Amino acid sequence: MIVELISVGTEILLGNIVNTNTQYLAEKCALLGLSMYHQVTVGDNRERLSAALETALSRSDVVILTGGLGPTEDDLTKEVCAEVMGFELAEDAHTRERIEKYFKNSIYKDIPDNNWKQAMVPQGSTVLDNSNGTAPGLIMEKNGKTAILLPGPPNELKPLFTEQVFPYLQNRQPEVIRSQMIKICGYGESQVEDKLIDLINTQTNPTIATYAKTAEVHLRVTAKADNEEAAKNLLKPVVKEIKNRFENAVYTTKEEETLEMAVVRLLKKYELTVTTAESCTGGLIAGRLVNVPGASEVFREGFITYSNKAKRKYLDVSKGTLKKYGAVSEQTAKEMATGGVFATDADACIAVTGIAGPDAEGEKPVGLVYIACYMKDKVKVEEYHFKGNREKIREQSVVKALDFLRRSILSNYH
Amino acid sequence: MIVELISVGTEILLGNIVNTNTQYLAEKCALLGLSMYHQVTVGDNRERLSAALETALSRSDVVILTGGLGPTEDDLTKEVCAEVMGFELAEDAHTRERIEKYFKNSIYKDIPDNNWKQAMVPQGSTVLDNSNGTAPGLIMEKNGKTAILLPGPPNELKPLFTEQVFPYLQNRQPEVIRSQMIKICGYGESQVEDKLIDLINTQTNPTIATYAKTAEVHLRVTAKADNEEAAKNLLKPVVKEIKNRFENAVYTTKEEETLEMAVVRLLKKYELTVTTAESCTGGLIAGRLVNVPGASEVFREGFITYSNKAKRKYLDVSKGTLKKYGAVSEQTAKEMATGGVFATDADACIAVTGIAGPDAEGEKPVGLVYIACYMKDKVKVEEYHFKGNREKIREQSVVKALDFLRRSILSNYH
Repeated sequence: MIVELISVGTEILLGNIVNTNTQYLAEKCALLGLSMYHQVTVGDNRERLSAALETALSRSDVVILTGGLGPTEDDLTKEVCAEVMGFELAEDAHTRERIEKYFKNSIYKDIPDNNWKQAMVPQGSTVLDNSNGTAPGLIMEKNGKTAILLPGPPNELKPLFTEQVFPYLQNRQPEVIRSQMIKICGYGESQVEDKLIDLINTQTNPTIATYAKTAEVHLRVTAKADNEEAAKNLLKPVVKEIKNRFENAVYTTKEEETLEMAVVRLLKKYELTVTTAESCTGGLIAGRLVNVPGASEVFREGFITYSNKAKRKYLDVSKGTLKKYGAVSEQTAKEMATGGVFATDADACIAVTGIAGPDAEGEKPVGLVYIACYMKDKVKVEEYHFKGNREKIREQSVVKALDFLRRSILSNYH
Repeated sequence: MIVELISVGTEILLGNIVNTNTQYLAEKCALLGLSMYHQVTVGDNRERLSAALETALSRSDVVILTGGLGPTEDDLTKEVCAEVMGFELAEDAHTRERIEKYFKNSIYKDIPDNNWKQAMVPQGSTVLDNSNGTAPGLIMEKNGKTAILLPGPPNELKPLFTEQVFPYLQNRQPEVIRSQMIKICGYGESQVEDKLIDLINTQTNPTIATYAKTAEVHLRVTAKADNEEAAKNLLKPVVKEIKNRFENAVYTTKEEETLEMAVVRLLKKYELTVTTAESCTGGLIAGRLVNVPGASEVFREGFITYSNKAKRKYLDVSKGTLKKYGAVSEQTAKEMATGGVFATDADACIAVTGIAGPDAEGEKPVGLVYIACYMKDKVKVEEYHFKGNREKIREQSVVKALDFLRRSILSNYH
């Protein structure tokens, strides 16, 4: 089955946004074993969208269109698809009701007139409820061809795709495709590939694909077979071999589990609580922990100690240490982590101090970051030299801090 | 002049990488005032690349192709372009010499045989030296059409484009294009469009484009003219009119200024410091403030008080308030903000408490968020009902909190 992506939006053609939807959908389609030969972006323009859709329908079985489902006059995707594929638009009572409900719970109490446009759907299409916005997704089937329309905002598109479009496409695939995710922290992408080069080069079923993330590498092992059991049996030995090669650097094999979810899971498992003491990351580690629903069981309070004074006041970092070694030092990181545990009733503390830039501090270069972890009456510290701009350095610090906490739990309690 | 982008690479079709080159090139082309109507991605496949190029040359003046210039057999872009446009390939002595030099300075001393393929260039094309790799860029002109070939790795493509392709395209543009950004907080996208519908519908030069961001709307006003002054004169009255209509909701007109940068700028201007008291946002407001280089002047410390105990301990929220009104209440938010100022020497405190979900708390629904701001001996609170998942509710809370702080500074000090 051949699938093609059409992104609709002048903002993409103008370079105002990075088109991350395309990567997301392409990865999921690859996971489903679908063939993708074209990805196309056009603006909010009737003629060009119409032409792009006609071309796509002529060479592909399924066309996924993203964007252009908003309430404004510029938003044309639904109208153009209906015209090209020969559908009539009519108001959908169910969708109208959902829009009313959406605005009832919103800070904007008045529903702008143009929002009612979003309740119009092609008659005979399948409406996909959107829990995070007012534009529903749509599946339109005719003459053996399918158009799937999805809203552009990633936080609307992703859950809609995962929950409703993915199973729909999976049902239409004759072969069974199963894949297993393996998420790794602590190795770069080329290091991971080096360690797996023999497997990557010789394997055809299952295949191994690597995805580089900020300070993480994700591996996807994918097998095709006639039935689920056969696919799983193909996966099993390869996944086992990879896990053996990376040991504790594998933080999860669950598709949806993030690093912070893995950390919170381990803290809960060993009934531990953690606090955070952040300087250059300024609250982002705590912010990641609180991403996890139910984090309150393991995380109750955190410190953002950006100034030296705050490091002394809340974390009892000594004046002497700050003076002798500076705020960005192994010693300060250790005292921050220790102070965090003593200032609270937490079992552990993860502390970060570093230079995110843009300016270096004396002899200490931009990218120098110390991360300390206090756990079981011991404090350990790691020194990092990160590359990139301020944002990139802070992002990497957050990931490494979460992973340091994870590794500390494993080595102390596992 | 119409420009079209063709990205070449199976790794993009498989979703292994996000195509950031396209955004980069699209933004630069917009800045040059070039019209872009299509962006296309095809894999490393001779027939499909050939067809995509033919289509692009038929409807656009300039086609920029990225990727597929590497040394392997899969890399076909140069060969296909030469074939489609009728150029002969021949070895370029200058490029051969550069490749030799590149390997001399590299850790890999032996030059793989297939690298010599990269010294072959279409006869009559312009060779663009690549300082960061072995594949040169190429400009091929024939019959009024131009193909520009650039290597795929962003660290090779970007300097090559900025230093050599941008000036080349600028020279070919007869018109001058200038644009002005206007960033707005406090109105939804359709509300912004409603307020500007007369301008949007009647303006052709300058044009007004809206971009929805999380709890923000960005407007770009773009004018074309014969010279810079004329373009600026076209922009001025429209920008002034938009600013009048949105007043204080406009937080910046600077292209690169983010909301947190605007907040830090105002804090610095009035010599104010701020602290943060965060519950459901768990450090993300502080994290945003620390995004800004030099934030340490205005932000020294922050509290993450996720538990009730922490709210009492650090912010002196009273037991009675927590018991009577609950942690997510107007009263608790106010006491958090007040407590934050009294616990530190900051001039202001922004406090957030809310229910990010996934579960409601008793009668209080998911998405209910209170934001309080203490400033100049007064504390004010705002109640929000956000939609979306946990992540989206937290993101909106952060933006609204930063904007509340910004509005408070303006109303107290401006």
